[in-house]
Amino acid sequence: MKSFTIRCAAATALLPLAAFVSPAVAHDHGSKATAIYAPITESEVKAAQKAWCGALVAIATEFDTKGQSAAKTLAGQVLDSAYGYAMGPVLFKPTLTVVPQTFRTTRDGALAYFVGGDPAYSKDTGFALKGWRQCEPENAGIVITGNSAISMGNVSMWDSKGAMTKVDKTWGYVRGADGNLKIVLHHSSLPYTTK
Amino acid sequence: MKSFTIRCAAATALLPLAAFVSPAVAHDHGSKATAIYAPITESEVKAAQKAWCGALVAIATEFDTKGQSAAKTLAGQVLDSAYGYAMGPVLFKPTLTVVPQTFRTTRDGALAYFVGGDPAYSKDTGFALKGWRQCEPENAGIVITGNSAISMGNVSMWDSKGAMTKVDKTWGYVRGADGNLKIVLHHSSLPYTTK
Amino acid sequence: MKSFTIRCAAATALLPLAAFVSPAVAHDHGSKATAIYAPITESEVKAAQKAWCGALVAIATEFDTKGQSAAKTLAGQVLDSAYGYAMGPVLFKPTLTVVPQTFRTTRDGALAYFVGGDPAYSKDTGFALKGWRQCEPENAGIVITGNSAISMGNVSMWDSKGAMTKVDKTWGYVRGADGNLKIVLHHSSLPYTTK
Amino acid sequence: MKSFTIRCAAATALLPLAAFVSPAVAHDHGSKATAIYAPITESEVKAAQKAWCGALVAIATEFDTKGQSAAKTLAGQVLDSAYGYAMGPVLFKPTLTVVPQTFRTTRDGALAYFVGGDPAYSKDTGFALKGWRQCEPENAGIVITGNSAISMGNVSMWDSKGAMTKVDKTWGYVRGADGNLKIVLHHSSLPYTTK
Repeated sequence: MKSFTIRCAAATALLPLAAFVSPAVAHDHGSKATAIYAPITESEVKAAQKAWCGALVAIATEFDTKGQSAAKTLAGQVLDSAYGYAMGPVLFKPTLTVVPQTFRTTRDGALAYFVGGDPAYSKDTGFALKGWRQCEPENAGIVITGNSAISMGNVSMWDSKGAMTKVDKTWGYVRGADGNLKIVLHHSSLPYTTK
Repeated sequence: MKSFTIRCAAATALLPLAAFVSPAVAHDHGSKATAIYAPITESEVKAAQKAWCGALVAIATEFDTKGQSAAKTLAGQVLDSAYGYAMGPVLFKPTLTVVPQTFRTTRDGALAYFVGGDPAYSKDTGFALKGWRQCEPENAGIVITGNSAISMGNVSMWDSKGAMTKVDKTWGYVRGADGNLKIVLHHSSLPYTTK
Repeated sequence: MKSFTIRCAAATALLPLAAFVSPAVAHDHGSKATAIYAPITESEVKAAQKAWCGALVAIATEFDTKGQSAAKTLAGQVLDSAYGYAMGPVLFKPTLTVVPQTFRTTRDGALAYFVGGDPAYSKDTGFALKGWRQCEPENAGIVITGNSAISMGNVSMWDSKGAMTKVDKTWGYVRGADGNLKIVLHHSSLPYTTK
Repeated sequence: MKSFTIRCAAATALLPLAAFVSPAVAHDHGSKATAIYAPITESEVKAAQKAWCGALVAIATEFDTKGQSAAKTLAGQVLDSAYGYAMGPVLFKPTLTVVPQTFRTTRDGALAYFVGGDPAYSKDTGFALKGWRQCEPENAGIVITGNSAISMGNVSMWDSKGAMTKVDKTWGYVRGADGNLKIVLHHSSLPYTTK
């Protein structure tokens, strides 16, 4: 008897399968994303962190080469693929937001933070437009809690002049309808300094 | 500060919300299905059980009034909405299957069991075509394990002549991409009798 | 910066750790069981299945060599370590129980099934006392649903005379307070035969 | 047939039960904590937030009335009951920690932060010793992800002179071996200001 397992799967494919009755059908599943209910893996979390950094640099570069409108389009695509706004409100406390718009639980609020230009969020100048050319996540820890996962650590970002900004970063993930991780929690803050 | 919560939600809507930044957006979410990551509730499990019974009667009635082809079409729709075959193999041990085709982990195997007529499963006569007119689930217990749930009990089915068949039934559920419960486990068996 | 991850861990130890602040403390955690919230792995499920088989043979052997009282003591220990009765009712439909005591959601009901001798379950003759000498699980499939897991397949059991009994078997697992898997669902049935 | 359900339970008790076979045993379970695998509820999260605030005030008051040693003892008890250090490293970024000891993934590091006096964390002056007399959590949102939960919002703290400190706060919870919520994620930061 052949058997299959929906196991801790890599991010890119439903590994398991080979259902003993009909391997052909199982093979079809092999091209799909990971099943929604599969546990999240450390590899997936790290890949999602790298993807976030890559997206930040991509938006900044898009802005510098093609302007705000193009950057906004790209940022919207990033939000839709990397964040869970389609599933409900996201717990997002960006690095530089201020009272009374500290928390950006809606897609509009997140988009305004990343690319600015939204009169409803007049203090936003576009965090993703600040010339970022390099971005590196560094984990203090990752905790997999089954169907969700959280990570904490630093993210270092370098702009086009080589200036570095390092923030304290927490992310929380769940698996989306497409089988890929979605950010449902994002708390970013500048390091505390005693001056 | 207003707040929202993605709480234990009813099956039909993402209850919570009212994100404090933008209630309008939250209201939009109100028309969606429950978030994929929301815990499964007892009400959802019971609704899924009733839906299964309703579908069995519907397929049997479709067969008696419109024939096998119509019944097969309906059964396929039921499988796609109520079972998790789109997410991967399903652990399905129907009441009347025999070795070596006892387990029906593929959609084809499940469809053959319910409506017959598939030469690849030549012993299947179509369980859902046996004149069912009434179907009642009765739980011995339901256990909610967070993002999944299991139930065990009896299902009683009456045919058009009033004859009753009662089986021991286990179902396991996860939440699908549409926010609704999907059966990923189904073990059905005739009661043991000492004769 | 060193980092740790609570990842998909093996059954016997919290693999990850090496917290960057204090490796010594992390090392202490190394001797503990897997964190309660860690996803269940395929290896853990297979180990639990083998352990169940081993326990069945052990109880049968204990009965044949030391008698019913010793077998009952051992069976109680097995129930306490392998099943989740300490966490709440268990969905247990044993192979040979009959109406109105088909479902054994309590520890007492499970113990009576395995070793008999309980006047409250007068039809139980002790399934685990039937001379079992070998037991082999065979999976049709395993589905990991994050913090819980389900498996379906056959279990073959041979008695001291070499006679084999093969049942259709579903198990559901969650992680217990000790970090080890606990059975919270068990549906066993004799294969359907047409005769 | 009576039935039971392990449903979305309140924090203080395993509500469900009433197993149909043996209500007496089910009643015994009624005095236990919620089953480890039960989904986390919004009520539990809010209760845990209030408990955190209460503990902060209690430690501060203990310090002012009985001194550092008594406060340290109490803080240790709070850590053991409210945080998940017994289950593995905790993702803890306190409000006032600085590089290279920003993240306190061990119990020792957390205790030093709250009550100071640990030469291994020489910059810690004891955050919980700062005269707190009142503490109020305010949620921007709570997301229940099945067997875990996250919350984001503000926590306002008033000291004995009435001075208020308000921080941005993220907490992540899982259920511990005792059935109660444990903090496995805590990111606190001072609001960003443009000066």
